[in-house]
Amino acid sequence: MDELKRRIVNDAIALEGDIIQVDMFLNHNLDIPLLEEMGAALAKRFRGAGVTKILTVETSGIALACFTAQAMGTEMVYAKRFHTGYIDSKVYSSEIHSFSLEKTYTLRVSQKHLAPSDVVLIVDDILASGQAILGLLEIVAKSGAETAGVGVAIEKATREGGRLLRQMGLHVEALAVIEGVEDGKILVQ
Amino acid sequence: MDELKRRIVNDAIALEGDIIQVDMFLNHNLDIPLLEEMGAALAKRFRGAGVTKILTVETSGIALACFTAQAMGTEMVYAKRFHTGYIDSKVYSSEIHSFSLEKTYTLRVSQKHLAPSDVVLIVDDILASGQAILGLLEIVAKSGAETAGVGVAIEKATREGGRLLRQMGLHVEALAVIEGVEDGKILVQ
Repeated sequence: MDELKRRIVNDAIALEGDIIQVDMFLNHNLDIPLLEEMGAALAKRFRGAGVTKILTVETSGIALACFTAQAMGTEMVYAKRFHTGYIDSKVYSSEIHSFSLEKTYTLRVSQKHLAPSDVVLIVDDILASGQAILGLLEIVAKSGAETAGVGVAIEKATREGGRLLRQMGLHVEALAVIEGVEDGKILVQ
Repeated sequence: MDELKRRIVNDAIALEGDIIQVDMFLNHNLDIPLLEEMGAALAKRFRGAGVTKILTVETSGIALACFTAQAMGTEMVYAKRFHTGYIDSKVYSSEIHSFSLEKTYTLRVSQKHLAPSDVVLIVDDILASGQAILGLLEIVAKSGAETAGVGVAIEKATREGGRLLRQMGLHVEALAVIEGVEDGKILVQ
């Protein structure tokens, strides 16, 4: 998606440790028209897949998942990663490990929010190692629902997540792919 | 807002310990058209206030803040409460205590995302003790920006937050007010 690629080239900052800072438009301060456009672009790429529900994980996937759900006319559910607020005792859960944060999390979705009749599109802001998305796939599988695919704003081609998911036969769409960083310049495809 | 009140009466569940479960439409599984309508309603109530930015806190305020920003044509920024992902070292921060979770959190907003010229509308899903909103007010004050007011989906009139904020002279708008629970029935105004 051209506008997203332009924003990455112009505004994102490559930091040490493989971090690409996109907090000025994607995951701290939000450029709402850009997110709307991204949601519409993901909706277009999964049109005809019969999607009934968007699934993401808190926190940074929520905004893009909201606008994707708006564009597709579906509900959205986010897996809980933190222990805040009430959640039913009956949940579908999965354990994921964040290598960047060196922490293990339990993702949880209340069983009443995913049905075997659902066709689920998994949405997140950034696909790197793919751990969070593997956790969400496990939750969808446990619920008996079908996975339509995975849509992300940014895929880091320098990490193994995208390859892994495609090898599993999944339909994966990324609106921008970061190929690497050369002399502080972010290479975007 | 009639549709929100109807959903609370029909679908919300009163649990022990003053918990009102609204996870089927507001803060786990999201009814997107309802959230759009709620964002538009908050935008209407703060029309003419010169709002330039919506501020919320992760996680459960993000969806409503997105749709309020969409309706008002502004950017949105969410304060970080959890240590995930990259954030600048230069932040405006405040300490808040969650009585329900018996935890203290540090809310953080990168200094580059709030300017003294900003007029900020604080948005959250539920106003109870008001601790999170007091933390956000402190962050806005530290940035030198102006606060236009506070807009929430649900205010619990049984808790002190709303009264406290109005005594401070703030413009507070709630789309539904929960007056209490009688025999398991939620009383909504």
